Amino acid sequence: MIKVGVINVTGYAGAELARLLHTHPEAEMVSVTGRSEAGKKLAAVFPHLASYDLTIEPELGGGVDFVFSALPHAASAEACAPLVRAGIPVVDISADFRLNDAKVYAEWYGGEHPAPDLLSQAAYGLTELNREAVRGGKLIANPGCFPESALLGLAPAIKAGIIGPDIIVDSKSGVSGAGRGLALNLHFSEAAESVSAYALNGHRHLPEMVQEIAKMWPQAEAPDDVKPRVTFTPHLIPMTRGILSTCYAPIVPGQLPSGVASKQAVHDLYAEAYSGESFVRVVDPSVEGPPSTKQTRGNNMCLVYPAVDVRAERLVVVSVLDNLVKGAAGQAIQNMNVMLGLPETMGLDAPAVYP
Amino acid sequence: MIKVGVINVTGYAGAELARLLHTHPEAEMVSVTGRSEAGKKLAAVFPHLASYDLTIEPELGGGVDFVFSALPHAASAEACAPLVRAGIPVVDISADFRLNDAKVYAEWYGGEHPAPDLLSQAAYGLTELNREAVRGGKLIANPGCFPESALLGLAPAIKAGIIGPDIIVDSKSGVSGAGRGLALNLHFSEAAESVSAYALNGHRHLPEMVQEIAKMWPQAEAPDDVKPRVTFTPHLIPMTRGILSTCYAPIVPGQLPSGVASKQAVHDLYAEAYSGESFVRVVDPSVEGPPSTKQTRGNNMCLVYPAVDVRAERLVVVSVLDNLVKGAAGQAIQNMNVMLGLPETMGLDAPAVYP
Amino acid sequence: MIKVGVINVTGYAGAELARLLHTHPEAEMVSVTGRSEAGKKLAAVFPHLASYDLTIEPELGGGVDFVFSALPHAASAEACAPLVRAGIPVVDISADFRLNDAKVYAEWYGGEHPAPDLLSQAAYGLTELNREAVRGGKLIANPGCFPESALLGLAPAIKAGIIGPDIIVDSKSGVSGAGRGLALNLHFSEAAESVSAYALNGHRHLPEMVQEIAKMWPQAEAPDDVKPRVTFTPHLIPMTRGILSTCYAPIVPGQLPSGVASKQAVHDLYAEAYSGESFVRVVDPSVEGPPSTKQTRGNNMCLVYPAVDVRAERLVVVSVLDNLVKGAAGQAIQNMNVMLGLPETMGLDAPAVYP
Amino acid sequence: MIKVGVINVTGYAGAELARLLHTHPEAEMVSVTGRSEAGKKLAAVFPHLASYDLTIEPELGGGVDFVFSALPHAASAEACAPLVRAGIPVVDISADFRLNDAKVYAEWYGGEHPAPDLLSQAAYGLTELNREAVRGGKLIANPGCFPESALLGLAPAIKAGIIGPDIIVDSKSGVSGAGRGLALNLHFSEAAESVSAYALNGHRHLPEMVQEIAKMWPQAEAPDDVKPRVTFTPHLIPMTRGILSTCYAPIVPGQLPSGVASKQAVHDLYAEAYSGESFVRVVDPSVEGPPSTKQTRGNNMCLVYPAVDVRAERLVVVSVLDNLVKGAAGQAIQNMNVMLGLPETMGLDAPAVYP
Repeated sequence: MIKVGVINVTGYAGAELARLLHTHPEAEMVSVTGRSEAGKKLAAVFPHLASYDLTIEPELGGGVDFVFSALPHAASAEACAPLVRAGIPVVDISADFRLNDAKVYAEWYGGEHPAPDLLSQAAYGLTELNREAVRGGKLIANPGCFPESALLGLAPAIKAGIIGPDIIVDSKSGVSGAGRGLALNLHFSEAAESVSAYALNGHRHLPEMVQEIAKMWPQAEAPDDVKPRVTFTPHLIPMTRGILSTCYAPIVPGQLPSGVASKQAVHDLYAEAYSGESFVRVVDPSVEGPPSTKQTRGNNMCLVYPAVDVRAERLVVVSVLDNLVKGAAGQAIQNMNVMLGLPETMGLDAPAVYP
Repeated sequence: MIKVGVINVTGYAGAELARLLHTHPEAEMVSVTGRSEAGKKLAAVFPHLASYDLTIEPELGGGVDFVFSALPHAASAEACAPLVRAGIPVVDISADFRLNDAKVYAEWYGGEHPAPDLLSQAAYGLTELNREAVRGGKLIANPGCFPESALLGLAPAIKAGIIGPDIIVDSKSGVSGAGRGLALNLHFSEAAESVSAYALNGHRHLPEMVQEIAKMWPQAEAPDDVKPRVTFTPHLIPMTRGILSTCYAPIVPGQLPSGVASKQAVHDLYAEAYSGESFVRVVDPSVEGPPSTKQTRGNNMCLVYPAVDVRAERLVVVSVLDNLVKGAAGQAIQNMNVMLGLPETMGLDAPAVYP
Repeated sequence: MIKVGVINVTGYAGAELARLLHTHPEAEMVSVTGRSEAGKKLAAVFPHLASYDLTIEPELGGGVDFVFSALPHAASAEACAPLVRAGIPVVDISADFRLNDAKVYAEWYGGEHPAPDLLSQAAYGLTELNREAVRGGKLIANPGCFPESALLGLAPAIKAGIIGPDIIVDSKSGVSGAGRGLALNLHFSEAAESVSAYALNGHRHLPEMVQEIAKMWPQAEAPDDVKPRVTFTPHLIPMTRGILSTCYAPIVPGQLPSGVASKQAVHDLYAEAYSGESFVRVVDPSVEGPPSTKQTRGNNMCLVYPAVDVRAERLVVVSVLDNLVKGAAGQAIQNMNVMLGLPETMGLDAPAVYP
Repeated sequence: MIKVGVINVTGYAGAELARLLHTHPEAEMVSVTGRSEAGKKLAAVFPHLASYDLTIEPELGGGVDFVFSALPHAASAEACAPLVRAGIPVVDISADFRLNDAKVYAEWYGGEHPAPDLLSQAAYGLTELNREAVRGGKLIANPGCFPESALLGLAPAIKAGIIGPDIIVDSKSGVSGAGRGLALNLHFSEAAESVSAYALNGHRHLPEMVQEIAKMWPQAEAPDDVKPRVTFTPHLIPMTRGILSTCYAPIVPGQLPSGVASKQAVHDLYAEAYSGESFVRVVDPSVEGPPSTKQTRGNNMCLVYPAVDVRAERLVVVSVLDNLVKGAAGQAIQNMNVMLGLPETMGLDAPAVYP
């Protein structure tokens, strides 16, 4: 059994790690930390985790083989750095090791990076798109929930060179994505029966999306001086879990059959791209309608539905996932499985909790 | 008192007309029709309308001065045509008189138009953008709820020539927009705690948007052979009422100050465009954040929040409204007020029911 | 026009007063106070009240004819006392003047009553049950939302002597009843898709219920030494507005026809008791099913549905209302209307916002 | 591996069986039936079950070792009877074998029982209260979701003789309890943001509660001619999953320490009664507040919170569970485990999906 530690178990991502690890056959959560709740039993803070007999400690206990950090950014890098340097494999759920450039980090996260020397060692943990780096990695930057949904939605089209760089990602997120900390816009009476956009001046997940999209961009189409022009708008939806991202990009003329035939071609391209994946399913429009977030509630799937607006010659891709699972804790465990050579789906094969 | 008839009061738009007319000081709902519910008391079908003492009839009674039709398309044109020909002013909430071209209607609504000769008499009832035509009109085509939100969000930018024709409208709608008819995707257990996209092959509100955007388009920018390329994606949100549309378009180079200054310029442009309007409020980002649909719940306001993505040089406009009020029944009464020379806000001045 | 002041407009009850007063034809809200938000425009705090041009002040301005206090308990009595002593009519929405006995107040509200000398002047403002006292009153204690629903549900049965004193009130409340202050159990992700009971050791609305039930109790049945034994359990429901109370009491043998006939007898008793009331409607089971809170959303109605469990010989009464309207602000305005000799329904006749 | 068949997989209980069986280590779902959906792939009807490669058949295939029936009542008994007679162990999730008396069945379910001869062979499958009968059983009547929550909440008090027979069960249910069939009151726009009571003339789960309560009743307290007087009121709550039942009963004088001490005594009684149980947890009020349904979402736990109203000398017990898991499919699998001699928690140990 792998002895797992979770730093900052007291947020939603931390609690979700605990939930999922509970049924993992090869990993056991043996040490958990929290800040304000240190000293309490885990079960007292989270009654749904009553089957754990663990106390929340201020610091991780010794003897852990593997660590997940669910701390906020900056604090997370500070906590992870000594572990990484001590050779303990770490998946960091915070944003600290996602951006390759410490200057970009400083610009978006408002402070110097706490461990810039580790940036080059970190692998971006969107397993499906970066599996080899994850396999060899010791420090994995777990992706942001919004980039996760957008990148899985866009990757096949970008790599195939069928879309131009004018990309719009319009995301709809459940409220748990904003965390467990109290705020007026997350107060039930304010958030229920309402939808709103936020971060219209730029969300921190934008540079992460741009960085990863640029890496995938075919060089013929995007020479070094051409940057994808990505607009990303997140919206708060009156539901607890789930992200649906609707991604738009112009189709490059001549790259697809014209008219309705382009729809089948795009579907085939996506089906092929994800043909071996366990956690990405390309929805077949001849069998099902567009996916709903409920179809992924509580599990590690991402459903991708590519469509073509033949009138406007635009690709429209809808992707859905559970922000706390595939968008956070489930993705992190998937990364752990790959890092440790376990079957990638281990502990992650439960169907979604529908309805 | 104006004696008002409502055709098909038994859907949500019809019931909302009854609700709003109840407190209108110059109009009295005196006759209502329904199909399956004919013969019942209105209060038996809608307990919240218990203060009305009306029976649902198969046909409108005589003696009405003004008629709203809340029938589905096709049936609505058939019911409205004889009234219009008899000189009774009508606001049709269905789609039947929105499209100017009967061929486009046939293509999208799947049947010949029941009264194509009346199309040229119909005025598009988005009052703020077409007030003079409404004032002189006898047959008003009440806008679709999605076009209403998109057009109010985009009109100032289009008319000022600051955006190019690559327009994306990503709309989030409460479930009541899909009506009172039962369907599995509207079943509570399916729709709650979930979000999904729909109509990815083209929603019927698309040609309406394209038609009205094209009319507003400055001729220098859009000669007759240049059509706006509009992609429209509606999404079903787990809330009863409300639409939020997020509209995206590229900013035409040179039309705005560069960088951050463009934000103020766009705000000023919008504030000026809607300066005299009672039912459109341009949100000032120095005072408030982006609007939420809850701020318009139950009333006739549309809140518009224009923003600029300065990195991608793109206009992003968020607009919110209540799909049953400004998106249907309230807009219809606003049109009635204008048609009859009443104050435009009469009966429509209640604040939103927040929280 | 009556010049109205609202103390502590910044909570949900205060905002609801502002919403409802906006369309009151004889009252104008001219002065509003707040604590943390003093100095801001009302519209900046509540965008749905943008049509008001008022600044939130630390203290009420002079020249108000009538005051509503929406402060929390204790603070409210302190603010109301000088106004009452100065002869300004006041409706206090807090609990401060509801309990007749300062000792009971101290026991339940954890502190000495700030103005015990005024208790004898205060009238309990459940208009339908205490109209004459309200009419002559200068200081009205607006009822708690839970007692309002329970008392309207039970009063006819109690007064008619058909039930015994073993009363259970099981109430289901929307989250707005807990106010605008942040708390973990009111955080959207915690409250959504969940229901829980609270205050199982005794809710502050219990002594208010007991006091008013005891006053109504027929003396033959309840001599001074017989106190109603009331158990009251509130539950938090994942909805913003609305209270449904299910009230249970044993039927006194011999007071009603036996078997199914008792149902009609109870309905007739209730219909008669509320026959002249504008804001209480006894639902007729031959026409409608049991009421839902949605049927009262945003308006001042209380719907009452008396039923009989003939097997267990028990009365079961369901009552529904909007906790912010009939349970707070609407009831307060109803009281103002009665105090000032205005028509009782003035400004309160809008139908519910359904769906 | 046990080869499992599920009759009528296409409702919510059936789909939940499929979800839970997917991760059961010793059972494999090999055959599923449906009525309207026969011929379709299971994954086409339920995208969240895409990992199954099964076709919905009109009839069960041969070779199944164990059968769950999720048919509606009457149809279920007809389908189960030949299986039982052929010696195949069956858990029937319908109501058909819950009532011991075919006459009571006919009275409440409106028709002759299809297999009255099997009633005496059926064991009531509330495992915690009837484990030995389940262990030896071949035909298990899975309990109704409401009785399950009420009986687990009341059993320790009844058996200990501390309460009298005037029992009230006030239940709050998520909408999925009403099934997947369409109905206006289950339409999202009607059910969202609303609560209502239903079945005030008597719900079909009432005779089941009464029967099982009577069986548990201590004979000294309840001689044959004394029947518990149970009033049961279910309420529809705007959430998908979950039941919370609040149960009320008078405390028998002299059976408990008086005053506050009674609370600890009741807690101890309950903790003792359920001390060996894996799926019932008595919440300790010194550590946690009253439970919320969210704490059991998606898993097989029932949380029980006994309280005492010392003023009214009444026991108040709150119990929560997921109506589709402990209230249906999870309970059914728990029964299968016991019937087949497997560890009782096998396949059912996942924590709840919170938040």
